[in-house]
This record gives sequence, structure tokens and C-alpha cells, in this order.
Amino acid sequence: MNNNLYFSGIFPPIVTPFRKEEVAYDYLIENVEKLNKSGIRGMVILGSNGENVFLSEQEKIEVVQKVIQHAAKDKLIIVGSGCESARETICLTNKLAELGAHAALLVTPFYYNNKMNEEALIKYYSLVADQAKIPILLYNVPKFTGINMSTETLVQLSHHHNIIGIKDSSGNVNQLGQFLNRVESNFNILVGTAGALFGALTLGCSGGILALANIAPEQCVEIYQLVKSGNYEKAREFQLRMIPVNHATTATFGISGLKYAMDLLGYKGGETRLPLLPLKQEEKEKIKKILVDADLKIVSTL
Amino acid sequence: MNNNLYFSGIFPPIVTPFRKEEVAYDYLIENVEKLNKSGIRGMVILGSNGENVFLSEQEKIEVVQKVIQHAAKDKLIIVGSGCESARETICLTNKLAELGAHAALLVTPFYYNNKMNEEALIKYYSLVADQAKIPILLYNVPKFTGINMSTETLVQLSHHHNIIGIKDSSGNVNQLGQFLNRVESNFNILVGTAGALFGALTLGCSGGILALANIAPEQCVEIYQLVKSGNYEKAREFQLRMIPVNHATTATFGISGLKYAMDLLGYKGGETRLPLLPLKQEEKEKIKKILVDADLKIVSTL
Amino acid sequence: MNNNLYFSGIFPPIVTPFRKEEVAYDYLIENVEKLNKSGIRGMVILGSNGENVFLSEQEKIEVVQKVIQHAAKDKLIIVGSGCESARETICLTNKLAELGAHAALLVTPFYYNNKMNEEALIKYYSLVADQAKIPILLYNVPKFTGINMSTETLVQLSHHHNIIGIKDSSGNVNQLGQFLNRVESNFNILVGTAGALFGALTLGCSGGILALANIAPEQCVEIYQLVKSGNYEKAREFQLRMIPVNHATTATFGISGLKYAMDLLGYKGGETRLPLLPLKQEEKEKIKKILVDADLKIVSTL
Amino acid sequence: MNNNLYFSGIFPPIVTPFRKEEVAYDYLIENVEKLNKSGIRGMVILGSNGENVFLSEQEKIEVVQKVIQHAAKDKLIIVGSGCESARETICLTNKLAELGAHAALLVTPFYYNNKMNEEALIKYYSLVADQAKIPILLYNVPKFTGINMSTETLVQLSHHHNIIGIKDSSGNVNQLGQFLNRVESNFNILVGTAGALFGALTLGCSGGILALANIAPEQCVEIYQLVKSGNYEKAREFQLRMIPVNHATTATFGISGLKYAMDLLGYKGGETRLPLLPLKQEEKEKIKKILVDADLKIVSTL
Repeated sequence: MNNNLYFSGIFPPIVTPFRKEEVAYDYLIENVEKLNKSGIRGMVILGSNGENVFLSEQEKIEVVQKVIQHAAKDKLIIVGSGCESARETICLTNKLAELGAHAALLVTPFYYNNKMNEEALIKYYSLVADQAKIPILLYNVPKFTGINMSTETLVQLSHHHNIIGIKDSSGNVNQLGQFLNRVESNFNILVGTAGALFGALTLGCSGGILALANIAPEQCVEIYQLVKSGNYEKAREFQLRMIPVNHATTATFGISGLKYAMDLLGYKGGETRLPLLPLKQEEKEKIKKILVDADLKIVSTL
Repeated sequence: MNNNLYFSGIFPPIVTPFRKEEVAYDYLIENVEKLNKSGIRGMVILGSNGENVFLSEQEKIEVVQKVIQHAAKDKLIIVGSGCESARETICLTNKLAELGAHAALLVTPFYYNNKMNEEALIKYYSLVADQAKIPILLYNVPKFTGINMSTETLVQLSHHHNIIGIKDSSGNVNQLGQFLNRVESNFNILVGTAGALFGALTLGCSGGILALANIAPEQCVEIYQLVKSGNYEKAREFQLRMIPVNHATTATFGISGLKYAMDLLGYKGGETRLPLLPLKQEEKEKIKKILVDADLKIVSTL
Repeated sequence: MNNNLYFSGIFPPIVTPFRKEEVAYDYLIENVEKLNKSGIRGMVILGSNGENVFLSEQEKIEVVQKVIQHAAKDKLIIVGSGCESARETICLTNKLAELGAHAALLVTPFYYNNKMNEEALIKYYSLVADQAKIPILLYNVPKFTGINMSTETLVQLSHHHNIIGIKDSSGNVNQLGQFLNRVESNFNILVGTAGALFGALTLGCSGGILALANIAPEQCVEIYQLVKSGNYEKAREFQLRMIPVNHATTATFGISGLKYAMDLLGYKGGETRLPLLPLKQEEKEKIKKILVDADLKIVSTL
Repeated sequence: MNNNLYFSGIFPPIVTPFRKEEVAYDYLIENVEKLNKSGIRGMVILGSNGENVFLSEQEKIEVVQKVIQHAAKDKLIIVGSGCESARETICLTNKLAELGAHAALLVTPFYYNNKMNEEALIKYYSLVADQAKIPILLYNVPKFTGINMSTETLVQLSHHHNIIGIKDSSGNVNQLGQFLNRVESNFNILVGTAGALFGALTLGCSGGILALANIAPEQCVEIYQLVKSGNYEKAREFQLRMIPVNHATTATFGISGLKYAMDLLGYKGGETRLPLLPLKQEEKEKIKKILVDADLKIVSTL
């Protein structure tokens, strides 16, 4: 892979639909086949929105197998194979690499948060990247981990030949600017929150890994292409229209909200696993209204 | 004031220079006179960067008097007259209004943070805006206050005839997008962190109140005008070049760093008041290097 | 003052009652006269519970004058004269010293929180203690300030001849233990949360500055004396009985709750100042029930 | 198990020693055999100090097998079998129950922290407790999870017949007091930080699960027994002496520090797994000094 910027464009971190606590593989495949037809660059499997932390290792493997089997050949497959220990991360990453994943997106370890300093993160990612059979993307997501990767740490890690980018979900364009200033131009900086997509792209980010792309993939791709073609004004309008939808299906109602919106819009969100709770009726009404207000086409009356 | 968007463009929150713990009014005036010649829209006095919390009421009044006396007549004067109680805020705001301030920038009360809910903030700002003799700008600065104003609170307050805008220093363009989506187009949304200036302006914000504009006012104005004229690519370059300077003079080295950079660049930063400490020699060297790297012209060898 | 442990026992940080936004001096005096008859060691004026941040300097002076005028001669008077700058703190402390205050309780400066490191705190407190005309008590209250004083900082400051103790409101007995281990035995360590009073006293603290002592001074004194006399079992019972009362009048309902409980129990809480809001009816009912459950005698039917 | 207070006394959450990233079962067994001879009530396996999050499921099973095989028959065995999903938690808990574990200590799920409200926690724990073949102890550890269980949640869960207690590591005796006030007397409240042991026991807690008990089991047991027999003064002295040791081997140097202290004191700490880093030489010296100062007997010169 000579050109790392191969990892540009829009990637949905796809959800894992459940039915009575079991993975609903039929729903999963239906979603993949629908996403195949969109302009997304690829899919992220086993991300935070994929309820990765709720799956057994066996389930993780089966989910990855099914997605790879049904994804269009031109779509890049990124897997969320980060565990707390370097050892487990390497093991899982390489298992999934053998199934055909193109890259691994690795969350910062965080359980022992006050020990996850610069030195620890650099040792962790360097060791994993040395031994991984596929390229590594870093994943900085302070809202879940409580850890924010420093620019210095990123810069050091960006020099590793097998670390090719980062997904930054801090939502902070100032930080994205610092990252862009300090890394080589072929290091992929992907934004992790759709609310900052337009800002990140205008600043020079190469794309986004966006929960919103599970329900509005074409709109996300549209923003990406409008910015690339210099049509900032139109991109801005799309961005502003998508902000309430994104906020509702991430910060406010979380994965349960995202899955319900998928159901309404013709995808198969399915259920979440416990302890994530299903939406209450009034929450459902709110989401429905927000989708309608954003001109998204509701096709189901769930 | 029929057109609230009068408050658009770039505003430095000017520093209060000290000499041996006393306000150095000569330095203050020299800075104002230099800023008069730049393309800034106005100045904010008594903001966080003005070490507002370190000043006695008498000093606040004198600082405002001096600045108003020396500011060019076309510059808007905004004062940071927020106190913890509504009563004190009204009293100080109106004293400063009589001195000629055009608007007041009022930080969210925060000492009793767990009681500063939506209802409390709305009552506070509504009462103050009712009784203030000048228009009110809200000031949301979670890094100092621990409080982040919700979109709902902002929307409600934006309907008050005497509340004309907000300075948002959250650094979160997602949140700025939510704000922009929900308020009338003549409500001034000013970004409070220079690192997010380009992103905020492309999204539709009307300007910025930026510590960086104390040391690089023309560069901030340039970014503003480039975006307004649709020259995004050039604006982006300026933005990326300014990011390290902004980071050094705010997050990393704080007001002491900002004042030292002013000294290097021909302004008069002067000293900070205790407990803010002066920079150490190695910190000074780092700032000097960052300014040089950003093509800012060092004119002093302090 | 040879024996610093003079500052032991129970101190209420007295509230400032308001009536239609004005200080209700008659209520204030009535409370002081009632407290004079209890076994408390003294009173803290202008603390967090005194709505210190809502008062003008003139009001602070008048409140201190009135309290000193009416307090029994054997009660120690501590004033909360901490401001953000060393200069303002020294100035206010010495003004209040001249009115007859015995000691000053100085909150850690916190607005520029990321700069309030060990060096800054040590410089601040050392300078203030050098110039203050009365002894200094440090005040560590992370829930309001976001800053937690380290053991090292405390140990260094404890060597200053004019720094005689600390009020620690972290609620953390582990930290109190660290403090006790490292300072001289005549350094006064006072706990700042009634919920930790029993634990703090058994560990060796010299007393407490407790919001609860505004409404239940005798019960707090009782716990103090039971521990001093070795009657731990009885002290424990009192402590457990007071915990819900303390929680309701601090964490849950704040100063508005504390003032309402005072009103019910025969003191004069009065109103709070805006933006602190009055209690809603259902909140009042909850407090009433909690007081009754704790065997406190309701004498008013407000 | 008629009498739930069977789970009282001191429990070390035992470490998992590694040698070149592999579990060092010989070290593990040696530690268990040494702990068998102390007065501890039992052992916790797979807790935070056991580097639980670094182990594969297979390793978890083997570790539990080995410990149960070598633990004295009178020691209670508690396993940390909490996973993020209810489903995985039930599955692992029951596997470990079949190996002979007496109870499971289940950390609050936390990855989706803003969704882990009272309703979610109650559903999670109720479902798990319904289906678990052994009794459940709740585990509240805000410093790792960012979640603090409310008193209301605890009270509701305490009514479940298969939920028999809680380990609270908040370090907050005020909160322990609230818990003690509201649950039945046979609900086991165990403190999770040695620095609060004395305070917790005097308040009425039934014991502690303490990292410190890996290196100073007899001293922890001594504090427990002194309090039970009413010898508070002596217990207080022990507590104060242990505080610096506890702080060094938990907050300051973490598990690497705990393991090094074990090595020095005749246990087998072994290595940590990456990304936890080994101590630097100067950190080792600091720990050594702290152990000596606390009169703990160093038997190794590592």
C-alpha cells in the first residue's frame, strides 16, 4: 500500500443488529448490501457503534466474516480490534487480518487511565504495529475513554511505517489543525464526529468515520464531495441540516437512537444488547420528527 | 442598533499589562493605539485574558475609561462585566455603560456549578438583560467555568431583545453548528478560540473574540476576510499557520505566554499578577521559536 | 497565639440571609445570637455557604462588622477573604482583620485552573501569609474549584509561621490521613463536610467547618465531644443520623435547601440571591421529611 | 447462605503475576499459599489489581482454577467476572461458579457511560443476579469507570435476594454512610480503598477488599480486628502508618508499584502486561523507602 491516502472518504462504523440478544446476521447482511450501493469508501466493523464491547470473541469473528463476505470488493474493511493489552490486541488483529480486513482501528487503552501516559501509549501502539499483519489506524475517543491523545504522541507514532492514520472523535477542530500541521501529508486524519465533518474537511482531513453514515451515507458522501470540489456553500448547508440528526443519533439517544433511525429509514438497526436500553415511545417520536425536519425519507412506520 | 450583526469581525480580548503588580496604563494605552490601526472590529475589555478576576472594581473602571478614551471611534467596545450574582452584574454593567461601553460580555455564573441549570441561567441572563443599559453577549467558556451552555438555553435567551449574541469558547464546531441552526440570523455567534476560527467562519459564525488577536490582529482579520470573500484555501493556510502560535499563547503557556509574545512582537504585554507566574527561560525560548516558525516578526529581544 | 490548636471544635460557615436581594442584617444577627448559645467554637463568615461570591466588598465588610459585634466573646471569628489575586486577598484580609477577625480562610485561586500548580499555590499563599495581619487557614474545596491541593503543597505551606491549618472539603478521609501523617501536630486540620466528620475526628482531625452546623450545631458538637471522650459507638449513631440531613442541605438542594431547613428549625435562613433559585414546593416537602426522620425539631410551618 | 455477613473481614484482590507477558502460575500459587496463612477472610480474583482487562477468557479460567485449587478451604473466593454486556457477564460468572467460586464481584458497565443511568444499571444487575449461580457483589469504582452508583440504585438492588453486598472504592465515607443508613444490616458493605479502611469500619462497614492486603495482609487484618474489639486508638495508628504505603502502591505507582512492593516483601509480584510499564529505578527507590518508613520488612533486594 504505497499510497496511504487510499483511506480517504466516508466510512460508516456499522452497527451490530441484535434480535433477542442474538446477533441478527440477516439484518447485518442486509445493511452491508445496501451500503455497498452508496458512495462510501468502506466500512468499520466492531467500532463503538458496533457494540464491540458487548460481543464475545467468537461473535466478533463471525461478524467480520459475514461483512467481508457481503461487502462490495471496492469497499475498504476496517476492524476495531483494540483490546486493553497489547498481547490481546495483536492476537485479535491478526485473526481478523486473516479473514481479509484491510486495516485495524485501535482505541487507546484506557482502563488504567492514569497510567496511559505518552510513554505507555507509544510502547503499546509501536509494539502492536510491529506485529500486526495489517496497517493500524489510531482511535482517539475521549468521550468514551477519558483519554485525549496529545499531538506529540501522535506525531511520534505517525513515523511508524505501519501506522497510517487516526480517527479523532474529540470533535475539536483546533486539535485536528494541530495534527494536520505536524504529520506527513500521507497520514490519514479522519474525523470521528459528523458534526465536525465540514469543518474537518475544509481544514484538510482526508475523510470521516461517522455514525451518521449508517443512516445518511449519501448525505455524508455529498458533503465530502462538495468540499473536494470547492463547493463550500452547498456543503455548509448539508452540514447544518445533518447536525440535528447526528446529535440525536449519537450524543442524545446513543446507539439505541441510531438503530431506531436506521429502522425508520429502511435499514435494519435491530435491538441493542443490555445494558443499553431500547428507546421509550416519546424518544422515538422525537427522532422521527428530527429525521423529517432534515428531509430524510422515512420508509417504515415502526 | 437595528442590525445586530454589527458585532461581526475580529475582536481581541485585550490584556491588562501590569508593572510590579500595578496596572501599567501607559502600556495599555500603547496597545490600544496600535490596535486602532489594525482591521479589528473592536476590543473586549475585562475578559479572561484581561485578568478580570484579579482587578478591583476601581481598577476595572479605570481600565475601561482609559481604553474608551484612546480607542478609535469606529471600534466597538465590549466589556466583561459578569459577576456571580445578577445584582452585582447589573450594577457593574451599567457603571461601564455610562463610561461608553457598547455591549457587555457576560460569563455564565459558575461558582455554585451544580445549581447553574437551565432555569438558573435563563433567570440570571433575562434579569440582567432586562436591566442592562447596553446589549448583552453571552459568554460560554467551559474550560474556565466547568459549565457548557445547552443549545436549548441559548435558543431561549436569544429571543430576549437585549441579548444579541454569544461568544462560544468551547472549541466545538459541532456545537456552533447546533447554535447556528437554531437562532435567528441576526444573532451574533462569535467563536472564542482562534484554533477554530476558520471552521467557525466557514460554518457561518459572524466573527471571533480571540486571544490571538492581541499578537496577530492582522492575521486574524485576514482569515476573516478571506473566508468572507470565498478564498477558503488561502484562509486555511493562514489558519494552520496560526494554530501553533495560538496553542502556545493560550492552552500551553496561558496569559503569561500571551503577554511575552506581545512583548516580542512590539506590543506591551507587561507582567501578570500573582498567582499567575512569569514564564521560565526555557518557556520563553519555546514561544520565540513558535513565533518565528509562524513568520511573525520579532521586534524585541526581551 | 502559641497554641494553634486553639482552632479546634465545630464552626458553622454561617449563611448570609437575604430579603428581596438585600442582606437581611436582622436575620443575620438573630442567627448569631442563637449560635452564641451553642457549643460551637466559632463562626466562619463569607464562606461558600455565606454566598460570599454574591456580595459586594461593602457588603462583606458590613456583614463581618455585624457578626463580630454580636458574636459572643469566646467565639472565634474566621473570615473567607480569599480573592483570585494575591493583592486583592491581602487587601481584603487586612481590612477584615482590623474589624476584629481572628483568622482568614482562603480558598485556592482557581479561575485559571490549569495554571494553579504547586508552585503557583505556594507563591500565592506564602505571599499572602507574609503580609496578612491574622493567621491563615487554607481552604481546599475541589467541588467548587476543580482544584485539589496535593499533600506536598500542604506540607510545604504548613511550615509557614502564619499558616495554621486547613479546611479540607474533599470528603476524602484517605487524603485527610495523608495530611495528618505529614504535618506537625499543632497544624489544624478541619474537615469541611459533615458526612465525613466522625471519620475525620476518629482519624485525628481537630474539628470541622460544617454547613450542617447552621441547622444542627448541637448535634455536630455532640459528635465532636463523643469522639473526644472515646464514645465512638454513640458518635457513630449521631453521624449516621445526620448524614441524610447533611446531604439534603448541601449536595442535593444546596444553599437554598440549607436556608429553608434553617427556617424550619427556628433560625432565619432567608432568601438566596439570584442566580441561586428558591426551592420548589416538592423540594421543601422532601427536606421537611428528612428533618423529621432525623429527629430534628421543626418549629416553623413555612 | 443464610447469613450474608459471612463476607466480612479483609480480602486482597490478588495480582496476576506475569513473566515475559505469560501468566506466571508458579508465582500466583506461591502468593496464594502465603496468603492462606494470614488472617484474611478470602481472596478476590480477576479484579482491577488482577489486570483482569488484560487476560483472555481462557487465562481467566485458568487463573481461577489455580487459585481455587491452592486456596485454603476456609477462604472465600470472589471472582471479578463483570463484562460490559449482561449476556457475557452471566456466561463468565457461571463458568467460574462451576469452578468453585463463592461469589462474583461485578463492576458497573461503563463504556457507554452517558447511558449507564439508574434504570440501565438496575436492569443489568437484576438480570445478571437472576441468572447467576452464585451471589453477586456490586463493584463501584469511579476512578476507573467514571460512574458513581447512586444511593437510590444501591438501595433498590440491595433488595434482590442474590445481591449480597457492594465493594465501594469511591473513598468517600460520606457515601458509605449513606449506603449504611439505607440498606439492611445483612447487606455487606466492603470498602475498596485501604486509606479509608479505619473510617469505613468505625462507621459500620463489614470489611475491605484492599490492594494493600497483597503486601500487608496482617496489618489490614489487625486494623479490622482492633476496630471490632473497640481498640480505636491503636487501629488509628496502624491506619496512619499504612496510608503512605497504600498511596504509593495504588494512586501513585499503580499495579507496577504494588507488584514491586510484593517482590520486596517476599511475595511474587512479577511483571505487568503492556501497556502497563515497569517502574523506573527512581520509582523503585521511593517505594523501598516508603516500605521501610512504615516498618514493613524488606526481604528481597530486587
